Amino acid sequence: NDKLKIFSLNSNETLAQEVADEIGRPLGKCSVKRFSDGEIQINIEESIRGCDVFVIQSTSYPVNDNLMELLIMIDALMRASARTINVVMPYYGYARQDRKARSREPITAKLVANLLEKAGADRVIAIDLHAPQIQGFFDIPIDHLVAEPILTEYFKGKGLEGNELVIVSPDHGGVTRARKMADRMKAPIAIIDKRRPRPNVAEVMSIVGNVEGKTAILIDDIIDTAGTITIAANAIIENGAKEVYACCTHPVLSGPAIERIDNSQIKELVITNSIELPESKKSPKIKQLSIAKLLGEAVIRVFEEKSVSTLFE
Amino acid sequence: NDKLKIFSLNSNETLAQEVADEIGRPLGKCSVKRFSDGEIQINIEESIRGCDVFVIQSTSYPVNDNLMELLIMIDALMRASARTINVVMPYYGYARQDRKARSREPITAKLVANLLEKAGADRVIAIDLHAPQIQGFFDIPIDHLVAEPILTEYFKGKGLEGNELVIVSPDHGGVTRARKMADRMKAPIAIIDKRRPRPNVAEVMSIVGNVEGKTAILIDDIIDTAGTITIAANAIIENGAKEVYACCTHPVLSGPAIERIDNSQIKELVITNSIELPESKKSPKIKQLSIAKLLGEAVIRVFEEKSVSTLFE
Ligand SMILES: Nc1ncnc2c1ncn2[C@@H]1O[C@H](COP(=O)(O)O)[C@@H](O)[C@H]1O
Ligand SMILES: Nc1ncnc2c1ncn2[C@@H]1O[C@H](COP(=O)(O)O)[C@@H](O)[C@H]1O
Repeated sequence: NDKLKIFSLNSNETLAQEVADEIGRPLGKCSVKRFSDGEIQINIEESIRGCDVFVIQSTSYPVNDNLMELLIMIDALMRASARTINVVMPYYGYARQDRKARSREPITAKLVANLLEKAGADRVIAIDLHAPQIQGFFDIPIDHLVAEPILTEYFKGKGLEGNELVIVSPDHGGVTRARKMADRMKAPIAIIDKRRPRPNVAEVMSIVGNVEGKTAILIDDIIDTAGTITIAANAIIENGAKEVYACCTHPVLSGPAIERIDNSQIKELVITNSIELPESKKSPKIKQLSIAKLLGEAVIRVFEEKSVSTLFE
Repeated sequence: NDKLKIFSLNSNETLAQEVADEIGRPLGKCSVKRFSDGEIQINIEESIRGCDVFVIQSTSYPVNDNLMELLIMIDALMRASARTINVVMPYYGYARQDRKARSREPITAKLVANLLEKAGADRVIAIDLHAPQIQGFFDIPIDHLVAEPILTEYFKGKGLEGNELVIVSPDHGGVTRARKMADRMKAPIAIIDKRRPRPNVAEVMSIVGNVEGKTAILIDDIIDTAGTITIAANAIIENGAKEVYACCTHPVLSGPAIERIDNSQIKELVITNSIELPESKKSPKIKQLSIAKLLGEAVIRVFEEKSVSTLFE
């Protein structure tokens, strides 16, 4: 399989190395630097002519730099005669800008899809897109992986399962995800129910479902400023839960997130390495799980032209 | 002409306001902010349905952020039913990456052209592209303005003209530009001639043409780290010139540029505001001229469907 090449850009070098190790191939040689004026300079340092190339890059912070690195890399690979260019995006930035919520807004998630295709991407591998509809923004194949089984396995490893447990969705949009985890853990679900009785009146939060005396696990796709999740955790404890865990696929963790988590009732926050955490965002409460095996398996299946969907069984 | 709308993004707000004043129209209302995680949030705050919209943005430092702002703005304008989207790029970032100088390099200047078109741009107005061939990277109309007459007028205003003067190109690539200025000032030209006698041997610099006893004006399109231009200026003085000025359209001025200019034999550096200078890059030696009138005139002519080329006579 010397026609399979894996390259890492700057967002996620540790994960990329782990994926390469899973596959048993070295990372491709390539220099990604900056000119004095901040422009990105990429040079691929080995032949990739006729190869199936996989580029691992999350468009996490700094999102615009990481996205441009990816686009420029795709351009360079295309001009260097790659057979196929497969973009592995553990985190898809701008995914929350996926519709016009108000007039005259952009739909940046669609723009990003267009830019990737225009640059020359042949396929995208993504994980837990904020909305599954983003798959339809592409006119090229997209493999959509889910990290929930990895999170679930971790909690099972703690001996958590069944009726002493409740899986909680922090909002109405995440109920399907909570349902999946609950099925796998044979546990019931609950939903944080936020509503605004009248315009310009404070939101009211209640919990639909029973959390009393139980261990609760909050599950979300993205935790950004951690406002929603920490308020939800505190409400769950107030409603009589024994303890509360939280988990998500994508640890954006911007602004006050770490402080909020440290000061919350959350016992442990379980995340994946779809986004690499800088030292400043590490906390004793945070447990990071690797998605390298999942990605490595997906890369091999794509390369061997086998189905990726069986990965979720 | 209420169907003509001008919007500014973040790279060049002062220039955009000047252009709007030239045209006698207010800048369009639009909010360009950042979410907590660094993603760009754009909201256009007035109807632009059926309008000819002009967006002013240089892709200067921070180039990736400024480029993404522009692409997202184009997406928002397209979805808000603009009649035409006209991109005014006083400075076109990544222009120096305009060819494969080595194997497996990207051609980022072409990628940028593709991204602008894909996002939905209908036309581009640019000034002094690093290579005029970049015009051919677009499949949409591009109006290519030149700032040389503005620089020339300034030097004429100092009473500099004719045979006491020499216009110097800092390299072989810039001779055409120097020739144009020389014609307009009825002055002779000279060329800084750098060559490497053998590989891995230091470059030798000499001056083709006569500078002795003259006032020299060095002209370039971009001054970035100012290495070339300050070495050239010092060589010109060593070769007996009375004094040396330098000028360029695009003041990138990265890294050691300001220090080098301050410590060089350059008497005055004349630049345009195609790139806005932060306070840290201001120097008593630097004189900045405005291209607002040129851009304003070009915008009006495009709007009125008149030829832009007559602007250069
Ligand atoms: N990076 C971001 N940070 C915070 N909010 C965002 C971001 N991107 C988009 N949004 C907003 O989040 C909303 C979508 O989130 P959701 O309702 O969870 O799908 C939209 O109204 C967007 O305006
Ligand atoms: N932002 C940049 N800063 C410095 N050099 C660059 C930059 N972008 C491209 N280059 C290099 O500059 C050369 C082109 O410059 P030129 O020969 O003046 O057209 C190419 O070899 C590029 O690799």
